Amino acid sequence: MTERGNPINSPPPSPRPRVVIVGAGFGGLNAAVQLRRAPVEVVVIDRRNYHLFQPLLYQVATGLLSPAQIATPIRHILSRQKNASVLMERVIGIDRVRREVVTDMSRVPFDYLIIATGARHHYFGHESWETIAPGLKKIDEATEIRARILTAFELAEAGDDDEQRRRLLTFAVIGAGPTGVEMAGAIAELARHAMTGDFRRIDPARARILLIEAGDRVLTSFPPELSEKAMRQLEGLGVEVMLRNAVTACDEDGLTLSGGERIACSSIVWAAGVMASPAAKWLGETTDRAGRVPIGPDLSLMDDPAIFVIGDTAAVTDAKGQVVPGVAPAAKQMGRYVAKVIRNRLAGRSTPAFVYRDWGNLATIGRKAAVADFGYIRLSGLLAWLAWSFAHIWFLIGFRNRLLVLVDWAWAYFTYDRGARLITGR
Amino acid sequence: MTERGNPINSPPPSPRPRVVIVGAGFGGLNAAVQLRRAPVEVVVIDRRNYHLFQPLLYQVATGLLSPAQIATPIRHILSRQKNASVLMERVIGIDRVRREVVTDMSRVPFDYLIIATGARHHYFGHESWETIAPGLKKIDEATEIRARILTAFELAEAGDDDEQRRRLLTFAVIGAGPTGVEMAGAIAELARHAMTGDFRRIDPARARILLIEAGDRVLTSFPPELSEKAMRQLEGLGVEVMLRNAVTACDEDGLTLSGGERIACSSIVWAAGVMASPAAKWLGETTDRAGRVPIGPDLSLMDDPAIFVIGDTAAVTDAKGQVVPGVAPAAKQMGRYVAKVIRNRLAGRSTPAFVYRDWGNLATIGRKAAVADFGYIRLSGLLAWLAWSFAHIWFLIGFRNRLLVLVDWAWAYFTYDRGARLITGR
Repeated sequence: MTERGNPINSPPPSPRPRVVIVGAGFGGLNAAVQLRRAPVEVVVIDRRNYHLFQPLLYQVATGLLSPAQIATPIRHILSRQKNASVLMERVIGIDRVRREVVTDMSRVPFDYLIIATGARHHYFGHESWETIAPGLKKIDEATEIRARILTAFELAEAGDDDEQRRRLLTFAVIGAGPTGVEMAGAIAELARHAMTGDFRRIDPARARILLIEAGDRVLTSFPPELSEKAMRQLEGLGVEVMLRNAVTACDEDGLTLSGGERIACSSIVWAAGVMASPAAKWLGETTDRAGRVPIGPDLSLMDDPAIFVIGDTAAVTDAKGQVVPGVAPAAKQMGRYVAKVIRNRLAGRSTPAFVYRDWGNLATIGRKAAVADFGYIRLSGLLAWLAWSFAHIWFLIGFRNRLLVLVDWAWAYFTYDRGARLITGR
Repeated sequence: MTERGNPINSPPPSPRPRVVIVGAGFGGLNAAVQLRRAPVEVVVIDRRNYHLFQPLLYQVATGLLSPAQIATPIRHILSRQKNASVLMERVIGIDRVRREVVTDMSRVPFDYLIIATGARHHYFGHESWETIAPGLKKIDEATEIRARILTAFELAEAGDDDEQRRRLLTFAVIGAGPTGVEMAGAIAELARHAMTGDFRRIDPARARILLIEAGDRVLTSFPPELSEKAMRQLEGLGVEVMLRNAVTACDEDGLTLSGGERIACSSIVWAAGVMASPAAKWLGETTDRAGRVPIGPDLSLMDDPAIFVIGDTAAVTDAKGQVVPGVAPAAKQMGRYVAKVIRNRLAGRSTPAFVYRDWGNLATIGRKAAVADFGYIRLSGLLAWLAWSFAHIWFLIGFRNRLLVLVDWAWAYFTYDRGARLITGR
């Protein structure tokens, strides 16, 4: 296997310590890249072959972008990083005694381990709702939601029954955090602008888009004044925001609100809660209510300094007492930080405790509609939207994706056209 | 339902004759568009919501293009054509007595009927091979083939067994017509160029790509000298062309050739034969060996002048005695022709019999590699490839798609990068 000239070679065993990173999201990938010059061997394990730019997944779900525009093969990103290799395998456990990650295909020994496996939806005990009200974490979920929304318009055009049509053209988004707000706004724009003229028997602009929130305002992570502005922008787009309404039942025909109101609807999107990945179970650690693993000031386990947990899987209060939010910038900062901790340890240096740098909070609602909270300055409307667009294009990994997304966004901006309106996969 | 102000209106019943078009491929769509000023109501029925530019599907299957770049919503194409409406329904039969198209959801009355339902793969009695060796007619088939090819490289990188690796890195394309040649060339470019540097344990450039053909040359629809040139260009890309070899068995582990040779391989693509759609069965008509319906000089049924069959579903010998080939330009010409026949009939005019205009024959093999037969002039290599690229961009429906495909192709040309290398849908 190792002689020269053999068509398929394995590399010689490495004497360098091996850092295994589970999960190639924002946290894992940033850790891997920041270890590029460290005297370590990096192994990135992910069950997908791509890194996904999750914040734009709602644009795939509403036909504005194609999956390939927000996803890049992990191998390709790490192609030139000679100390890194990538395994597309599904992790099923961690053997802390033998220091191995156990996958569906192999056992991967580690000296340092970085768990960056993110979060999934949380249905608060109603797990059976998942098929009826899918969330928005994976490409396949986005294309499924896209197919459901587009199929609802098709069935409404084909059918004759008025009541059925009203049900088909009612779309509900549950949860008014950033994802729910973005999703509701994007469905409204799809119905009111992109589809203009496409139908003969229905008027897609008459579709009802409901944003249902149990709390008393949208975007609770923002200051109340921006929640108010976001709500007005949503209503301007034609979204009906229903505050102080919990969902008590969800089925094929619609949903029931805590007040007892029954709403017939065809497509439901879940954006109401997340639960950390099952990493705690692999590690045998206790978790907080959201399934997250409590970690120390350097983001390693209290009882095992060689195992780090970062991103949405970690419950972190930083050295300044800030609770670190489950957002992409926080995951990136944690990824870079643990890479530094490992580099310092190998060099015999210590590292100051992790401090989260809050660059601000952005949420988009639609064309020229967004809110931005930079602490000292708060924006809404066009300026916030420009800030959001700039930040998202900037951070999309890979120049090519930036260019293609820019072309698509510019096209959609001027024409309201949505090119990826395909019903596939059924 | 019909009063003004009702949110969901049906149009008033039309006194105009209704032309129902089944299938929104090249033939059906061209017929619909050419009827835009005719005094008819046009109804296009397709089970998909998009028109697919099938000639570029192999680029989706090899990660160069995204599905949305070669597909456009049918509604969007016909959005401004006020006499046209679109139904996304699956046709299951035709009631010739009551003059209705029967779908899974409704019955659609017609005065004129245009059947343009294309062709599917034909396994010559080995229909069980379909799951092992999928063909390349639908988006879902292309993304499935893409996932299989990319997964094979991933498994080869993860595994340790040399024999298994060799099997995983052997790709077979069965049938050396234009689709098979394009597909084999594209897999070779993916393995030899796009993936350079992405793997650590395997060298993707060592992958074997086999193009298996029962006949004695590739591209039998071209003159022998161009077949010869295409074969040399394929070999230059590293494709092993195996002529005079029929496949006698196909399973999960590989395939067996007529000479008895057994080839272990992981991914098999079927490009060896097509069979017309089941339209003949709906119509109760007899067919030729390829399942095609024999039609008269004006492309209508011999016993029913109001029912037309066009494209790959029709067996046509034109007024000049040419057998019309199953290619996109022929389908388009037939679509435009039957629209003219209907317009003329409504105006009380007759129409000369259909004549196929052969603009030439193009097949691409890879970067700067193609063959072109324009009858009086035959090209191969760079010039043929430029002609092919120009023709395909030109005919891609929609300016936006042209622009995005151009950006993607230009990017891929200069960098060998393939942006859509995603394994999704599993």
